[in-house]
Amino acid sequence: MTQTIVSSATKEVRIGFDQPFVMIGERINPTGRKLLAAEMKAGDYSRVERDTLAQVAAGAQMLDVNAGIPLADEPKILAETIQLVQSITDVPLSIDSSVIEALEAGLSVYQGRALVNSTTAEEEVMERVLPLVKKYDAAVVAISNDETGISEDPDVRFEIAKRIVERAADYGIKAEDVVVDPLVMPIGAINRAGKDVFHLVRRLREELKVNTTCGASNIGFGLPNRHAINNAFLPMIAAAGMTSAILNPLHDGLVPAIKAADVLNGVDPHCTNWIHTFRAPPAENDGEGRGGRRRGRRRA
Amino acid sequence: MTQTIVSSATKEVRIGFDQPFVMIGERINPTGRKLLAAEMKAGDYSRVERDTLAQVAAGAQMLDVNAGIPLADEPKILAETIQLVQSITDVPLSIDSSVIEALEAGLSVYQGRALVNSTTAEEEVMERVLPLVKKYDAAVVAISNDETGISEDPDVRFEIAKRIVERAADYGIKAEDVVVDPLVMPIGAINRAGKDVFHLVRRLREELKVNTTCGASNIGFGLPNRHAINNAFLPMIAAAGMTSAILNPLHDGLVPAIKAADVLNGVDPHCTNWIHTFRAPPAENDGEGRGGRRRGRRRA
Repeated sequence: MTQTIVSSATKEVRIGFDQPFVMIGERINPTGRKLLAAEMKAGDYSRVERDTLAQVAAGAQMLDVNAGIPLADEPKILAETIQLVQSITDVPLSIDSSVIEALEAGLSVYQGRALVNSTTAEEEVMERVLPLVKKYDAAVVAISNDETGISEDPDVRFEIAKRIVERAADYGIKAEDVVVDPLVMPIGAINRAGKDVFHLVRRLREELKVNTTCGASNIGFGLPNRHAINNAFLPMIAAAGMTSAILNPLHDGLVPAIKAADVLNGVDPHCTNWIHTFRAPPAENDGEGRGGRRRGRRRA
Repeated sequence: MTQTIVSSATKEVRIGFDQPFVMIGERINPTGRKLLAAEMKAGDYSRVERDTLAQVAAGAQMLDVNAGIPLADEPKILAETIQLVQSITDVPLSIDSSVIEALEAGLSVYQGRALVNSTTAEEEVMERVLPLVKKYDAAVVAISNDETGISEDPDVRFEIAKRIVERAADYGIKAEDVVVDPLVMPIGAINRAGKDVFHLVRRLREELKVNTTCGASNIGFGLPNRHAINNAFLPMIAAAGMTSAILNPLHDGLVPAIKAADVLNGVDPHCTNWIHTFRAPPAENDGEGRGGRRRGRRRA
């Protein structure tokens, strides 16, 4: 069973085929958040602190940390943010940057085994990112696009992911430490996006035997009631075999949807985590009788 | 593409691989509903009327009608209920009984092409139900258990379903008119129940090429927050290939979850149905809670 092991100084998290789905909180990211960007640039990490605690309280098992701010000293800010976050929580982090110096600055201060977010299959990117992943004994997110862009054909994206896994092996990085992002397209723009990514995730799991992740908030882009699209998408892609996602655990209904998917995928043994999270006095368990009715009518 | 066509006097519904998921409202069923049972026995169908209209308003494309009341004249009550329901709505019906005389009474008054719910693979049951299905040119739900009971092994349940499809063919009933119920077990009792039924539904679709349905309210039996289990289960089993389910469309969040699954499975072209259902002024488009509340108001 494939397992990607990440850790902080004191806590280990396993992303794996037989593990609960790993929710990676996406909020510590100044992209599109002007106020957060200005604060981080000015060395004010109070909002980062609140986002950290809120996401962990909501159920995130990992946090993604990004400090991509235009015209700012990204390596310095990313390293400071990581140190701040690690000082107030023990969940492992995903270090998120497209700037190699920022990744190195982040890795150099990180305590534990990080997830590096990310490399693509672009030669230049792999040549810079993969040696760093090896040097710091990290795991890495592999995004399935290359110099030619993002293919709409999921089988082309499979071949691109396979190429990254093979190149990682050349650098001494095991396949189990490569977490493939199959790329989720907005369903409002591409009608086949759902079916295609379910098919691709299944192939990545069964044939390439790798863990997978995605930026989950993109699927409903441009549609009304998009959170309801998300809340159905996560259970569906978990059923297809995805093992983690970068998402907002504060969105209404999302964490219960994913924990329910864990129950239904058989990775919450005896429903222990579910019951621990949702148990309530019997009076609140409305509807018990209806299920009994349905069972009662079966000729068994 | 497999299609099961059912109809009322004026409306046709297609259950099919390339069709939106068909929600069959479960509420018109006196099992476990003492008040409804007493009223139906006394010839008072006012609650049936309300349940009919509420379920159709909530999005049910079909309704299941059951009149199984102990020590009552089930054939007469079922026929009367069907006539009442058909007089106030045009959605096709599933005629639900374990009593052959009740099924015949229901079929004899039904206008359109009904879904007969159900036969099992028990020889005695098939010998009585299948000729009736053929006589009235109906479709039939095939529950995958036989004289030996319900197997926990999904591959055994597959073989049992196959046996019903073959026996139906002997009676001149096409495979596309057999809608297999793979049997959903409570996940709280059987941890593999989810994975097993996803696997089974996939086999039924890919190998036996039949439509499928299930009693969806059973999966979370005995667990807290069971509706959240249901709301994740339906998108997951739809992703595995299930094409209909018998469920309560009034449960908070369930209809949005299934419509989202339609979008993600590519059976809501251009998201037309989704946008039609959920479009709202931009200020109100703030997600799942809003959709849920809207359903909640219809319910009340």
